[in-house]
Amino acid sequence: MKRTEIRQLYRETPADGAVVTVCGWARTVRDSKNIGFIELSDGGCFKPLQIVFEAAKLDNYREIAKAGVGTSLQVTGRVVLTPGAKQPFEVNADEIRVLGVCGPEYPLQKKRHTVEFLRTMPHLRPRTNTFAAAFRVRSVAAYAIHKFFQENGFVYAHTPLITGSDCEGAGEMFRVTTLDLDNVPRTEDGTVDFSQDFFGRSTNLTVSGQLEAEAMATAFGKVYTFGPTFRAENSNTPRHAAEFWMIEPEIAFADLADDMDLAEAMVKSVIAYVLEQCPAELAFFNQFFDKGLLERLNALVNSEFVRVSYTEAVELLKAHNDQFQYKVDWGTDLQTEHERYLTEQIYKKPVFVTDYPKEIKSFYMRLNDDGKTVAAADMLVPGVGELIGGSQREERLDVLEARMAELGLGKEDYEWYLDLRRFGSVEHAGFGLGFERLIMYLTGIPNIRDVIPFPRTAGGF
Amino acid sequence: MKRTEIRQLYRETPADGAVVTVCGWARTVRDSKNIGFIELSDGGCFKPLQIVFEAAKLDNYREIAKAGVGTSLQVTGRVVLTPGAKQPFEVNADEIRVLGVCGPEYPLQKKRHTVEFLRTMPHLRPRTNTFAAAFRVRSVAAYAIHKFFQENGFVYAHTPLITGSDCEGAGEMFRVTTLDLDNVPRTEDGTVDFSQDFFGRSTNLTVSGQLEAEAMATAFGKVYTFGPTFRAENSNTPRHAAEFWMIEPEIAFADLADDMDLAEAMVKSVIAYVLEQCPAELAFFNQFFDKGLLERLNALVNSEFVRVSYTEAVELLKAHNDQFQYKVDWGTDLQTEHERYLTEQIYKKPVFVTDYPKEIKSFYMRLNDDGKTVAAADMLVPGVGELIGGSQREERLDVLEARMAELGLGKEDYEWYLDLRRFGSVEHAGFGLGFERLIMYLTGIPNIRDVIPFPRTAGGF
Repeated sequence: MKRTEIRQLYRETPADGAVVTVCGWARTVRDSKNIGFIELSDGGCFKPLQIVFEAAKLDNYREIAKAGVGTSLQVTGRVVLTPGAKQPFEVNADEIRVLGVCGPEYPLQKKRHTVEFLRTMPHLRPRTNTFAAAFRVRSVAAYAIHKFFQENGFVYAHTPLITGSDCEGAGEMFRVTTLDLDNVPRTEDGTVDFSQDFFGRSTNLTVSGQLEAEAMATAFGKVYTFGPTFRAENSNTPRHAAEFWMIEPEIAFADLADDMDLAEAMVKSVIAYVLEQCPAELAFFNQFFDKGLLERLNALVNSEFVRVSYTEAVELLKAHNDQFQYKVDWGTDLQTEHERYLTEQIYKKPVFVTDYPKEIKSFYMRLNDDGKTVAAADMLVPGVGELIGGSQREERLDVLEARMAELGLGKEDYEWYLDLRRFGSVEHAGFGLGFERLIMYLTGIPNIRDVIPFPRTAGGF
Repeated sequence: MKRTEIRQLYRETPADGAVVTVCGWARTVRDSKNIGFIELSDGGCFKPLQIVFEAAKLDNYREIAKAGVGTSLQVTGRVVLTPGAKQPFEVNADEIRVLGVCGPEYPLQKKRHTVEFLRTMPHLRPRTNTFAAAFRVRSVAAYAIHKFFQENGFVYAHTPLITGSDCEGAGEMFRVTTLDLDNVPRTEDGTVDFSQDFFGRSTNLTVSGQLEAEAMATAFGKVYTFGPTFRAENSNTPRHAAEFWMIEPEIAFADLADDMDLAEAMVKSVIAYVLEQCPAELAFFNQFFDKGLLERLNALVNSEFVRVSYTEAVELLKAHNDQFQYKVDWGTDLQTEHERYLTEQIYKKPVFVTDYPKEIKSFYMRLNDDGKTVAAADMLVPGVGELIGGSQREERLDVLEARMAELGLGKEDYEWYLDLRRFGSVEHAGFGLGFERLIMYLTGIPNIRDVIPFPRTAGGF
């Protein structure tokens, strides 16, 4: 089917009188006795195209005038430049063909719907402005991430989804199985016989690709993952999903400062790219979701991020303990209220907090010389709090083994991970960025269910 | 840590005498009494860097000379241009620091290992030439796919991994559950009580994102997925994995011819990009895995693909039935032997076979006017057979419902899918490309286990 895409028309304003054929769905249809107007969208760009149709020219004028919102149409007509009007040009129809009807039972009529109502129809909601904008920003941001890493010499590493291990040594996981739940096989001593499961062992959905990314980094030097991860946490909150996408870069011959440099450069690059590619979408969110959005995004791109140690941050925050629900003291984990206070009130820009007490961080983080803190760095941004969590990894075999023993982690599950410290070990570091949290930050949308096309959350689907 | 990446040196040949600091792993160490040579790789490019070190200049000459393969090193030295030698320049070391030792127990000593042996150590094998090249090609090809679609106005759609439905109406699936297998909850009538499972229902890992991609295409016009899919098939073959990545574009206002145009343009674009970005890797595969590789890839980029109907292809193949293990006749599915005969012997170039009997294809494919065939198109390429399977989708509500009834598919599971035909239905089409099959085609590697960093196959992991 020969059609001109509407985004092409907007990109290369056509000549007055040019004949075009466009296809799309009617967003609105208005008509008086002899003339009518259609806002037509083909989904390729945020802005619809105005179609003018006249009774004098169309045999099927009444059919078109009565077409419901959502009807799919093919329109052939002439471009009419309209300087001074709201849109730079419109198309005056010579022929309109109805491709697919859409009746009054269509749930997305012109009136405004709540996001809660729209969540009940994930297959239709991308046809609305809010979700069209959200999922386009999602797509462009995903590409910006690949572009940044590929142009900087990183290898994209596909880490496994089905796994036998648990990166964090904690976290609730989904089991993956082909065993018959109606008749679970047992061993002689009565336990579940996982040797009969698909992989001959007990398997889960991954909670992080980091450990595998570390293995890849000791081969390629610089790698990143970008794939789905899973948490079977029963947290029915606006910020938790059971299935979400993570970006986990890992760099060799690098310490915590290099890691922060990378995180800052990546976030700035991705946000700048989305600002450049999605002006209409971001303007929409700035108007309807978050009046400070554009100012905040532009400020971030142009700011130099602060770096402050956890110990220093705690001192600063303690002076404001009267304002917090949870009081801050050295050794406690920072809550979102503290993170936001630091980045919004104290520094008024993005902040890396570094060198946390080892007790509140993961086993693989590099122990600092003080013996009390680890080389971790969380990136906090205004409006959200933590956007990124990273660390330098413990590359010293003896220190890592001692830490694992302290925490009671079974060495046998991590032999391969320890091999990376046995054979040409190097300083290395990395971080994790929750992709959905980035999209919430980029759009001002407050609920994670509204930045994922088909969300999977504790509430079910 | 300030280091110069080796790929940067090769990209912008440095000045003679320039002082650089490089880091990497020793691939080989050779020495005589007073002078030694190291092939150093930092993983950022295929080609290592030659380091020359001399007893007269290094206090730790003996230590370095004895360093095992795999040792990580930091080298500071001067660039020496070597016109006429195998490499354009080398680095003469002023200082070498051992970062991480690597002893004789390191499994990847200089001698050649079989891929079967290397499969037993997925965390180390990317350090070998074969796997370094395979996974870099994988990374570059993934980026080429995103680049192609994004530059052509497609929206990247993240379709869900955890799902309650089965796209193909067949196929063995992995169950996803948080139920306690040791004590499976039961309803009053004794069946498994899935209302107590995490999502309050029975859930699986997806076998395809196509149906959700169709929903997204009716909003954005042009979309693509690129994510993991799963099959719990007990096929222990070189071509089957339980976890693999798929690319599934879906285009609205498009028929089967548009779909083939898209598939052909995409494959050519991706292969051309990999040829351009990975010359060293492809030369390696051409030398060691498949002598005809480069010729085959270049031929594909420059050929015009053939389009032939299934009915015509069967007529052509029947004339050669004496050469086939499975005899061809109208109504039978084409086997790999037939597909390869068509593309390698008859046409000697890539071929789309179109319009298959409806009985051997999926329920969602558009019924042709003959009532017997559907608008499907498989892309066959020399050396592999089927690379892509695509179709125009049935957009007519009544025809689709009749076909589903014929096959006994429960309407209640597909109400949302039928909605796409109720509300502004449009002609649309799409295809699926198995990413691993593309990488096998691009590298000549014959086993799917060797193009996935951490493969998950019926044989376990």
